Parts: sequence; C-alpha cells; structure tokens
Amino acid sequence: MQDRTVDQPIIHREANADFRWEGVAVLPYKEDERALFSAITKQVLFSGPDFDGELRYFEIAPGGFSSLERHEHAHAVLTFRGRGHCLVGRQLKRIEHHDLVIVPPLTWHQFRASFHEPLGFLCMVNAKRDRPQLPSEQDLADMRSDPEIAKFLLNQLSED
Amino acid sequence: MQDRTVDQPIIHREANADFRWEGVAVLPYKEDERALFSAITKQVLFSGPDFDGELRYFEIAPGGFSSLERHEHAHAVLTFRGRGHCLVGRQLKRIEHHDLVIVPPLTWHQFRASFHEPLGFLCMVNAKRDRPQLPSEQDLADMRSDPEIAKFLLNQLSED
Repeated sequence: MQDRTVDQPIIHREANADFRWEGVAVLPYKEDERALFSAITKQVLFSGPDFDGELRYFEIAPGGFSSLERHEHAHAVLTFRGRGHCLVGRQLKRIEHHDLVIVPPLTWHQFRASFHEPLGFLCMVNAKRDRPQLPSEQDLADMRSDPEIAKFLLNQLSED
Repeated sequence: MQDRTVDQPIIHREANADFRWEGVAVLPYKEDERALFSAITKQVLFSGPDFDGELRYFEIAPGGFSSLERHEHAHAVLTFRGRGHCLVGRQLKRIEHHDLVIVPPLTWHQFRASFHEPLGFLCMVNAKRDRPQLPSEQDLADMRSDPEIAKFLLNQLSED
C-alpha cells in the first residue's frame, strides 16, 4: 500500500480551543499608519503545492477592520467566530456565526469587528492571485456618498 | 465605482444554527450497496468560475462513514462539528473540534462518525481534480494487517 504519510504530520490541533492551531504561525498585521487595516491577525491553515486554493483564518479584534481593497480574485468567507459587519460593493451586511460571504472580483470590500467581540472568519482564495488595489480619493468619495457606508467606514454603525 | 454585487446575493446564512445553509442544497449520498460509504451528506459552500478551489461541508451521521478511497488530489479538512476518527494512510487519528487534517495525494483515507454524535467537516479541494480510486482486495488486506486499522474499518474502535 502506497503511503506518503508515515513521516509527516497530518493533523494540526486547535490549541486551548482559542482559534489558534498548533504548528500554524499567527501573523500579526502591523498597525498601518495609513489606517488601512487594524488589529487583525492571519493564520494560513492550508496552503501548498498540492492545493490550487488556500484556506486562511483571519481574526479582527473588537473595533478593528481589514483593509478596504479590491482585486481580480474572489474571496469565499465563512464567519467562524463572533459577529461584525462587512461591506461588499454597495452591500453592507451584518455577519455572524457561520454566514457564507462571497466577495466577487474587483469589488471593494472590508470586514469590521463592529461589536464588542472579535470577528473571526475563514477565507478561501486562489493560490495564484493578483495584488490588492487600494481605493483612490474619488473611490472613497463615491463610497461615502451612501450615508450608511460612510458610517461603516467611520466605525460608527449602531449595534442593531 | 464598479460594483458587480448589486443584483446578486453575497450572503448565505446558516439556517437554525444547524449546519445547513440557506440556498445551499443538501446532497444526500445514497446508501451504497457495496457499503463504500454510509449516512453522509454534502453541501457545496463555495464553488464556481472565480475559484480554483471548492469548499464543501460534509456531515456523517453517528455510525456512518465516508468512502474509503484515494486520488491524485489532496484534501484539506477542518473538523467543524462533533468528533470521530479518520484513517489517512497508515495513520489512524481521533479528530475533534477544529482539528486540521491533510490528506496527501494518493493516500487511502476514510472518515468515521465513530462516536454517538455527528461528525461534520469542511473540506477544501481543487476544482479540477481526478476521480477517486477504490481499494482492491489486496489493498484492503494490506490495510487490515494492522489490527487497529482492521477495527477502524469494522467500526469497532473503542471510545477512548
């Protein structure tokens, strides 16, 4: 019987039931002086030559947010811990436990831990993907023309 | 601002907190007369032309099991509900909440809901992938030569 697994670990267990996995690095994102993202960590759960996709776990501390960006590649997101809000194009959504969120190509998006709790989510992407684009001042002005999106971008959503 | 999301749903919510998602079909696997798999359902959470990978949710009812198979493509598995056991090559592992399991290429594998509870797991695969191979009698005899694997295949693991 062919067996390529004898000498390699096949399991990484969650440590302390705290959304941290043994053998998986927790990559802190530095606070960005341009305030493009804040208080977010990344763990790459699955990646490598055998996979055309990657599965990552992001966690945003209360009040933090992911980068406001867009790119040719799509995101497939599964809310894994806590609650928050996301902006996907013109759609502003409250997200919570196990919600599935699709971010289509070339669509502005941002995730925010807008409640007093962490927001953790799994995110599947293509292994081969383009670099994110950041919004221009005009793009931002277009987004802010929607009052609800303006509040979201200022982290001023009410907790309804 | 470009926006491709105005007319399409970006969110599928979990219905009744029961690992079933609105708008996602629950695909029952028929009981297989050759007993290759039993009591397992599949939901395809993310798939489509924008993704080189797919994310599926499988759920095995207590006592059920997935197909014993191997293939060129790899599996990336995250235990999502309950506990059970998996066989990956010669490695037999108890798996539980949020464990990450890698099934390398061409490695025999099977998942079993070996406790009195469902075993649910997320599974990332490549969108383009080969068809599974089933074990020959000789392959099965080789596996059964390990007493623990023989017990696993007969669903006779003790709950330690």
